Amino acid sequence: MNTLTILRNKTNPYDIKRMEPITDSKLNPERLFPADPKLRGVTRELYQEVKDLPLISPHGHTDPQWFASNQNFTNATELFLIPDHYLFRMLFSQGISLESLGISRLDGAPIEKDHRKIWQTLADHFYLFRGTPSRIWFEHALHEVLGIELPFNPENADVIYDEINEKLSQESFRPRALFDRFNLEVLATTESPLDELVHHRSIADSGWNGRVITAFRPDPVVDPEFEGFSENITLLGQLTGEDTTSWTGYLNALMQRRAFFKSMGATSTDHGHPSAVTANLEPGECETLYLEALKKGLSGKKAEMFRGQMLTEMARMSLEDGLVMQIHPGSFRNHNQTLFQRFGRDMGADIPTQTDYVHALQPLLNRFGNEPELSVILFTLDETSYSRELAPLAGHYPILKLGPPWWFFDSPEGMLRFRRETTETAGFYNTVGFNDDTRAFLSIPARHDMARRIDCRFLAELVCEHRLSEEEAHETAIDLAYRLVKKAYRL
Amino acid sequence: MNTLTILRNKTNPYDIKRMEPITDSKLNPERLFPADPKLRGVTRELYQEVKDLPLISPHGHTDPQWFASNQNFTNATELFLIPDHYLFRMLFSQGISLESLGISRLDGAPIEKDHRKIWQTLADHFYLFRGTPSRIWFEHALHEVLGIELPFNPENADVIYDEINEKLSQESFRPRALFDRFNLEVLATTESPLDELVHHRSIADSGWNGRVITAFRPDPVVDPEFEGFSENITLLGQLTGEDTTSWTGYLNALMQRRAFFKSMGATSTDHGHPSAVTANLEPGECETLYLEALKKGLSGKKAEMFRGQMLTEMARMSLEDGLVMQIHPGSFRNHNQTLFQRFGRDMGADIPTQTDYVHALQPLLNRFGNEPELSVILFTLDETSYSRELAPLAGHYPILKLGPPWWFFDSPEGMLRFRRETTETAGFYNTVGFNDDTRAFLSIPARHDMARRIDCRFLAELVCEHRLSEEEAHETAIDLAYRLVKKAYRL
Amino acid sequence: MNTLTILRNKTNPYDIKRMEPITDSKLNPERLFPADPKLRGVTRELYQEVKDLPLISPHGHTDPQWFASNQNFTNATELFLIPDHYLFRMLFSQGISLESLGISRLDGAPIEKDHRKIWQTLADHFYLFRGTPSRIWFEHALHEVLGIELPFNPENADVIYDEINEKLSQESFRPRALFDRFNLEVLATTESPLDELVHHRSIADSGWNGRVITAFRPDPVVDPEFEGFSENITLLGQLTGEDTTSWTGYLNALMQRRAFFKSMGATSTDHGHPSAVTANLEPGECETLYLEALKKGLSGKKAEMFRGQMLTEMARMSLEDGLVMQIHPGSFRNHNQTLFQRFGRDMGADIPTQTDYVHALQPLLNRFGNEPELSVILFTLDETSYSRELAPLAGHYPILKLGPPWWFFDSPEGMLRFRRETTETAGFYNTVGFNDDTRAFLSIPARHDMARRIDCRFLAELVCEHRLSEEEAHETAIDLAYRLVKKAYRL
Repeated sequence: MNTLTILRNKTNPYDIKRMEPITDSKLNPERLFPADPKLRGVTRELYQEVKDLPLISPHGHTDPQWFASNQNFTNATELFLIPDHYLFRMLFSQGISLESLGISRLDGAPIEKDHRKIWQTLADHFYLFRGTPSRIWFEHALHEVLGIELPFNPENADVIYDEINEKLSQESFRPRALFDRFNLEVLATTESPLDELVHHRSIADSGWNGRVITAFRPDPVVDPEFEGFSENITLLGQLTGEDTTSWTGYLNALMQRRAFFKSMGATSTDHGHPSAVTANLEPGECETLYLEALKKGLSGKKAEMFRGQMLTEMARMSLEDGLVMQIHPGSFRNHNQTLFQRFGRDMGADIPTQTDYVHALQPLLNRFGNEPELSVILFTLDETSYSRELAPLAGHYPILKLGPPWWFFDSPEGMLRFRRETTETAGFYNTVGFNDDTRAFLSIPARHDMARRIDCRFLAELVCEHRLSEEEAHETAIDLAYRLVKKAYRL
Repeated sequence: MNTLTILRNKTNPYDIKRMEPITDSKLNPERLFPADPKLRGVTRELYQEVKDLPLISPHGHTDPQWFASNQNFTNATELFLIPDHYLFRMLFSQGISLESLGISRLDGAPIEKDHRKIWQTLADHFYLFRGTPSRIWFEHALHEVLGIELPFNPENADVIYDEINEKLSQESFRPRALFDRFNLEVLATTESPLDELVHHRSIADSGWNGRVITAFRPDPVVDPEFEGFSENITLLGQLTGEDTTSWTGYLNALMQRRAFFKSMGATSTDHGHPSAVTANLEPGECETLYLEALKKGLSGKKAEMFRGQMLTEMARMSLEDGLVMQIHPGSFRNHNQTLFQRFGRDMGADIPTQTDYVHALQPLLNRFGNEPELSVILFTLDETSYSRELAPLAGHYPILKLGPPWWFFDSPEGMLRFRRETTETAGFYNTVGFNDDTRAFLSIPARHDMARRIDCRFLAELVCEHRLSEEEAHETAIDLAYRLVKKAYRL
Repeated sequence: MNTLTILRNKTNPYDIKRMEPITDSKLNPERLFPADPKLRGVTRELYQEVKDLPLISPHGHTDPQWFASNQNFTNATELFLIPDHYLFRMLFSQGISLESLGISRLDGAPIEKDHRKIWQTLADHFYLFRGTPSRIWFEHALHEVLGIELPFNPENADVIYDEINEKLSQESFRPRALFDRFNLEVLATTESPLDELVHHRSIADSGWNGRVITAFRPDPVVDPEFEGFSENITLLGQLTGEDTTSWTGYLNALMQRRAFFKSMGATSTDHGHPSAVTANLEPGECETLYLEALKKGLSGKKAEMFRGQMLTEMARMSLEDGLVMQIHPGSFRNHNQTLFQRFGRDMGADIPTQTDYVHALQPLLNRFGNEPELSVILFTLDETSYSRELAPLAGHYPILKLGPPWWFFDSPEGMLRFRRETTETAGFYNTVGFNDDTRAFLSIPARHDMARRIDCRFLAELVCEHRLSEEEAHETAIDLAYRLVKKAYRL
């Protein structure tokens, strides 16, 4: 099945001439810089300006428990591979079962438990990641964060496994120490309205001065197709003391949870919908739809309309409480049904789909589009919308800003496309800097570093083509790396 | 609200190291040329060949009255900002009201009248235009056309305002003098069939030798959703003496107006439809649909079908009278309803939408697609259609040519994408050179200059990658800058 | 009509300054390499590694009779122009009739028979191909394969015509000699299940050691909208002795033909559908739909559902017999109805359309997506699907791989876009190397050479930007040029 590896080890007539590398690709200080010497020179100068700025991570999926308990991470495989669907989906795509990679099955069926062996499997197939951002993040974490000196390959996998585990057992590699070392000025996690935020409270009470805040992600209680929707609503009622069997009580309950999240530091909400559809129904229609959702559930167009109405309700609440809205639409979640039944969510089988914004957002925009105090950050998994829809919308509506390239497009080529396709119409100042959106804590510095390198590279092009002065480019580089994100997320 | 400006003026810990600019970005003679020395060298040579060729402006929206009356322009704000939705939409997107920018309200409510103050607002926010074509056009007009030497920034705004106004009061900055200085060989404006073309007649009678022609834009009388459609039809009947209450009389009236426009120099028609849909109905169906449009109005699919039928009728008439058809589809006009009600059309709230050509154009193409004497120029606001639909269509059908990158894509990156995504399938010779499509008269030289620079840059890549000889590239550069547009628009 | 050529010959005021070419663009050894010296240097080294590797052509449309009969090709026009819709469509797009190019009409009406004159027409309009891959392939065939030294232009057309014909009459330019000279390790043709593969048998029996295999293309018997569908089914029954009036007999017949094709060397099937729709119906529904197709024919949604079901059936059979599936969706065939009626298929009027994969493929993927022994290679004519749908799908599902850029995108820019938009998500190892997909035998070396140059160029960028070591790039270059295709097509 995996014959390529075998092929590689066989003698074959087209043997590779081994050459002296002209540079060491592993963490070369000028990695991701353009080849042209003039462009590279300007990129280098701009990057010097921003490389050590504090990291602002206003949106992501790290686990607040890490910072609450500050326990050591266990081992390399549990830290890097098992939680990271970016990594294991690629191995899966080449026929390696998730069971053999130690991913837990919902039915408790046996899986590989030997983490050292799984680590070796990763190393044996690490060539699959050539040309991917995962490889850059992984090597950054390995060499820069953990200080490993050997290159990661099948031969060194075993030694490196031990080295990492030894590092992880040290005081200086606990979550809070890493947080400080990463120069993180603020880190936001993402929680459901049903979450009591005990870890956030524990962090706040601990006296540690790291700023770990939450973000309000109401999908489980606003999406009628979410698993356990009506039970979630019941729970929402219990948490808030509101009568969530009525539309008004439901809205009050949401408003109350928003206030609670805000009191725990939240400055934003986040909405992960299948589409960007919004709606602007009459209150009576809302009530009817809500009651139907509770009683019988909704699907198809009706579910979409309800989610769309809830985006508009969230915008209305944001106008009151000042939370910034993030909309992350367009992912077809759990596309692989067998895998979903066997392993659950987030198994690397979420696939982007075509996403319309122009018609979809109009109901919300017609109601709130010109409100100077409202801020909505749009993301996309459909790059065709950059130049056609998103940049023209953000270059017009006061409430709209563009989030950075998301998920599959959080990558060097993805970032360059984003800048090339949005800047001419939306400018830089209708974008919001970078956010890492990761659950892989050790990759955070790598991800911000990549964004800074690429933005400097894009700015260097403008400078060398005389479209921007160097002075402006320096100022803009700092805006993109630091100032815009603070402003956009009201941090 | 506009905290970034404030932030900029505060002391902050990441102060910008001021550097000597390696070049002065303001109108550097090699602006928009690539950084690589070899590419730049070839670009420079090609550009030398075309930079002084006469400008052909076969499609745009300048006001013929300027050239008829030849009055001086009033002041910098009225000249640059108030008529240019490219500029004011960007300020609006950052929360600056249109009223404060001096844009007239339909209800006559008070707006800012102090043009000097508005000019200062533009200068204060000019950093928003970094990386946009608007900035390049604006600076070109300022420094190259008006001869301003100071850089445009908040400090110099006031002085520059006076300098510009002084210039505008001179004889040599009147519309006709500028027309001549711009080396405009021909300039087309765009008028409704209901227009009597008095300014064009006045220009013709004036003895001035500038060639200002019109183009026939029938949207107000062929789009049943256009404001005042049925009144427009009545007017059309009065103008022509035809009985526009019948389908036949209506067609005759249109043919008569086309003949009149042609007699005033028109060589083309222009069609701004929401989609590229065409239709090919039976005469009886046309009649029925037309009468319904007049009596009750049409909307939705029926309106689209009627517009689509009218594209086919226009093609038929073009085959008779030789006028070149331009189709500009895919803009969702007046997306911001509040703004539309308050300020009317063209307020920077027209947003591109996904546009299909393959199915949409088939009815027209099946009827006239192979007519050697017919010429239809296609534009798009949906760049995904370049390589997928437009280049294959234009690379096959004799009647089809591709218009240059339009509107948001009349930009350096937009032009490069156009060439990269159409040339391999359609070649250069199924494209029609450049047109500026602008209402900003002073930006015309800048826009043509940008197109020439970028086309030369693209050709230089082909030369340096040995895909084209230098000799061919020189010839093609002249074709793209001058010869193709004359041929395509039958000038 | 063709005024540009005339214009070119007239004296005009913008006469072209003739320059010494900095390089001879005709088959420069570094053609398609990037301009930057560092990038070019690495590209050159990588290209040295792969340029002489054997050619694997696992998918294409050459005629097996050429290799069976090994007759000399007749003349330049019949070899190059008449069978190649890439070439004649471009001339047609500029108003040159297919009749005047010697293309046969279905009604037998007179066409141009003077092949020398047609050749001159091609030369006169050869400037139309500037910047197109057709030009690169044509010149490669002319200069590299046929050894012509004069440049192809209107002046030399006549001499070159004679030179080519003289070459074609030689022993060393017969099909088998060229096959050997091209270093073709294997060449696959594409045949209908109704084909008896007599030429393949004749090649096998001839003792010649060239490996020419077939591929199973069942469109004529699985697409109810294919011309003569029900007659084809009858023929299928006769060929196999199965009762094709029943669903079961029909499936058995297909399985039998697959076995026959496999015995003649086939390792793959190929499916050219208007969309990527798949279906997973109950056997009873299949039977009903099949009988309706036979009795009354199917169109629209029903036809699509039947084709979709047949893709799933083919996947099931592939799981049994090991044939690799190729899916080539998204072409709107025969868009120009007049031309189709007059000349038939493959007249350059097949236009790509928007193609969805995420929803379309789900029925098949839910049934077979995780089967480690199944292999499905996806192609597209809709480049928007690269980063949005295809790379995420191939980067997850074990059965999916991405075919190389197809048809209009088998071009330098097309290949670069493919790598830039798929590699970061799918990696290199979920792609399958290159296939030429051509009916133009003499262009095969040119096409593979272009792919190798562009892949090396892309890898050189990764090396110079420190995203890949040179050693890895060398290994990957060989994988892309040779090893991946052998593995993917099980050769």
